[in-house]
Amino acid sequence: MQAGETAVEPYVLCETDSRGVARITLNRPRQFNALSEEMLAALQAQLDAIATNPHVRVVVLAGAGKAFCAGHDLKQMLAHPDQHYYEDLFARCSQMMLTIQRMPQPVIARVHGIATAAGCQLVAMCDLAVASSEAKFAVSGINVGLFCSTPSVALSRNIGRKAAFEMLVTGEFIDAETAHHLGLVNRVAPPDQLDATIEQLVDAILSKPAESIAIGKSLFYRQIELPMAEAYQLAGQTMACNMMEPCAQEGVTAFVEKRPPVWANSENR
Amino acid sequence: MQAGETAVEPYVLCETDSRGVARITLNRPRQFNALSEEMLAALQAQLDAIATNPHVRVVVLAGAGKAFCAGHDLKQMLAHPDQHYYEDLFARCSQMMLTIQRMPQPVIARVHGIATAAGCQLVAMCDLAVASSEAKFAVSGINVGLFCSTPSVALSRNIGRKAAFEMLVTGEFIDAETAHHLGLVNRVAPPDQLDATIEQLVDAILSKPAESIAIGKSLFYRQIELPMAEAYQLAGQTMACNMMEPCAQEGVTAFVEKRPPVWANSENR
Amino acid sequence: MQAGETAVEPYVLCETDSRGVARITLNRPRQFNALSEEMLAALQAQLDAIATNPHVRVVVLAGAGKAFCAGHDLKQMLAHPDQHYYEDLFARCSQMMLTIQRMPQPVIARVHGIATAAGCQLVAMCDLAVASSEAKFAVSGINVGLFCSTPSVALSRNIGRKAAFEMLVTGEFIDAETAHHLGLVNRVAPPDQLDATIEQLVDAILSKPAESIAIGKSLFYRQIELPMAEAYQLAGQTMACNMMEPCAQEGVTAFVEKRPPVWANSENR
Repeated sequence: MQAGETAVEPYVLCETDSRGVARITLNRPRQFNALSEEMLAALQAQLDAIATNPHVRVVVLAGAGKAFCAGHDLKQMLAHPDQHYYEDLFARCSQMMLTIQRMPQPVIARVHGIATAAGCQLVAMCDLAVASSEAKFAVSGINVGLFCSTPSVALSRNIGRKAAFEMLVTGEFIDAETAHHLGLVNRVAPPDQLDATIEQLVDAILSKPAESIAIGKSLFYRQIELPMAEAYQLAGQTMACNMMEPCAQEGVTAFVEKRPPVWANSENR
Repeated sequence: MQAGETAVEPYVLCETDSRGVARITLNRPRQFNALSEEMLAALQAQLDAIATNPHVRVVVLAGAGKAFCAGHDLKQMLAHPDQHYYEDLFARCSQMMLTIQRMPQPVIARVHGIATAAGCQLVAMCDLAVASSEAKFAVSGINVGLFCSTPSVALSRNIGRKAAFEMLVTGEFIDAETAHHLGLVNRVAPPDQLDATIEQLVDAILSKPAESIAIGKSLFYRQIELPMAEAYQLAGQTMACNMMEPCAQEGVTAFVEKRPPVWANSENR
Repeated sequence: MQAGETAVEPYVLCETDSRGVARITLNRPRQFNALSEEMLAALQAQLDAIATNPHVRVVVLAGAGKAFCAGHDLKQMLAHPDQHYYEDLFARCSQMMLTIQRMPQPVIARVHGIATAAGCQLVAMCDLAVASSEAKFAVSGINVGLFCSTPSVALSRNIGRKAAFEMLVTGEFIDAETAHHLGLVNRVAPPDQLDATIEQLVDAILSKPAESIAIGKSLFYRQIELPMAEAYQLAGQTMACNMMEPCAQEGVTAFVEKRPPVWANSENR
């Protein structure tokens, strides 16, 4: 905490609108939203609360100030030169990252500025990511002698391994267009179109039934780690269950009857 | 079946030319070649017959009418609101999809129009895919409340996970150029060049010995699911066996003697 | 060995400069640097020596003459029509390839000319690769009836499976730009800028501490084969150990103190 910020300023801001769009904002702009112990705890608590909140349909994860997120809080880490402390810190960070994938709602990273180290990992772990054309990405831990090992887990599952390795050993930035080309972000927009671009994805998700999105998101990340034949078995069972849900019965009925579906918890187009 | 189609019209057409090129055509144009129970059974039977037919060297999978394939037959599914029915249906569909990968001949998807849901999965499961510039691709089940779980298995093994997740939760179409950029199709051609472009791939495959292609295709999909050291062990053994085949001995001899190889069952260039 | 080459000409040249940059050159230009038994043995010995040499910080792997590497020595293989011989040969080749990934220093492929079959595999197995705009890549074994099974292991872990399968069954060349687009190489440069472009990567690596690079490289290839939760566990432990290293403590201290880090075995910028 620095001068000009008060002790009660929350680490994470969260607003949920009437449509069920939760906007989480990392709120330590002067520290470039570093993932300190306090920030990790606040973010974990917020994600846990949303995960069990049926009114939330989609999450937008943003950062206050100039940066999206600059990764771990190095000053705090330096103050605890203890291996058990670090192991525990990284375990909690990994837990938070995995929560993003395990929660039922899609999470969209809103990357308006730099995303470095665990901040770049955060982008990689979100289900979707939209970047401002001014955003930049790096896994820059190696610049201080700390290879971005945990970020590499997420990064190497988003982009090709040659590009991932280059980023990890050089610590250099890539721009938003390159991030898009490589597969780290879904879309790039001019800064003044960033929110409108995110809104397109939000609208698309809101128009689908929440149950189907939740079933699908969970299946997606489980099947991707299985051999193909096992993945198909799991996916087939999942899809059969999905088809028995009222939302799918209504959706398919509406399709056959050539009318729009009527779903309780979605905004149909 | 709709008015204007006779009961005896086969679900799948198949012609094999003198070169060993089997052209399978999904033949329910008015239903956009939906993968009904009958279509799945017909396609499975055709693929099984080809898999054991040594005269077939390569398969081109096409669709009659405007669409390539629009996925499952939703009307038929709606008529059977039973989880066991759906599990069985998806299991049979997955079996058909896996047959494409397990058969010894390369299978090329000829995508001239829309490929949606399990139709998009079909493209992803083929070894190669060539798209008309007018083709479009979506995993659109989510639009009727049915997340494309089984298509996600194939799609997420063709393209990056951020792009795959976006397609799955938005249900939106991508065009042929985007599909090419992402890795879902090998080549894009103007509609009037689609067959000529496929013919280039067909010719390249016909000019190789069938045994080597079969050995390689089988190895390719098995090794990709193994840890790297195990993959190398399997690949090394496979390649040693391949090298003992008469076709490889002839091919390597011809190379050393600076002459074209003479293979019984291939069209040498 | 052909006329004009003497018996004592080493298969592999290696020079290490005062900065710790080892430049390995495949030295059978007339055989397009084919990976004969002798070449494999020489390369293995050189890599093993470098792997345990703390003075070497980064490796550049190049080829003498017009080609980068044309794969196995087909003439030598033809002279040993024995399955055990081939199994042993491919096992030794795979061992050499895996050594590149297992050694602590990053290895950069310098691809100035053609890289075919196991030569293309060599590019795929290096941590980084820079290509001349005149370089070309193919897994062309299928042209002689020998499917590039072992190269497929490396290739399919660098590029998408549709593109990999196409290269493997057609045997056709792709140019450097396509290789870059697909993810097989990190950068493409005009021939006269090839070494300068490689030097940028070399400089970036030299400016980091060797311990962190070694820890990270080892972690990178182990985590990529694990399910995500296990990968995070391993990566978190690795990063905690890394953080306890003097180089990271100095690096993070320097960062907090807003000064450049002072590392014994790196060239700081």
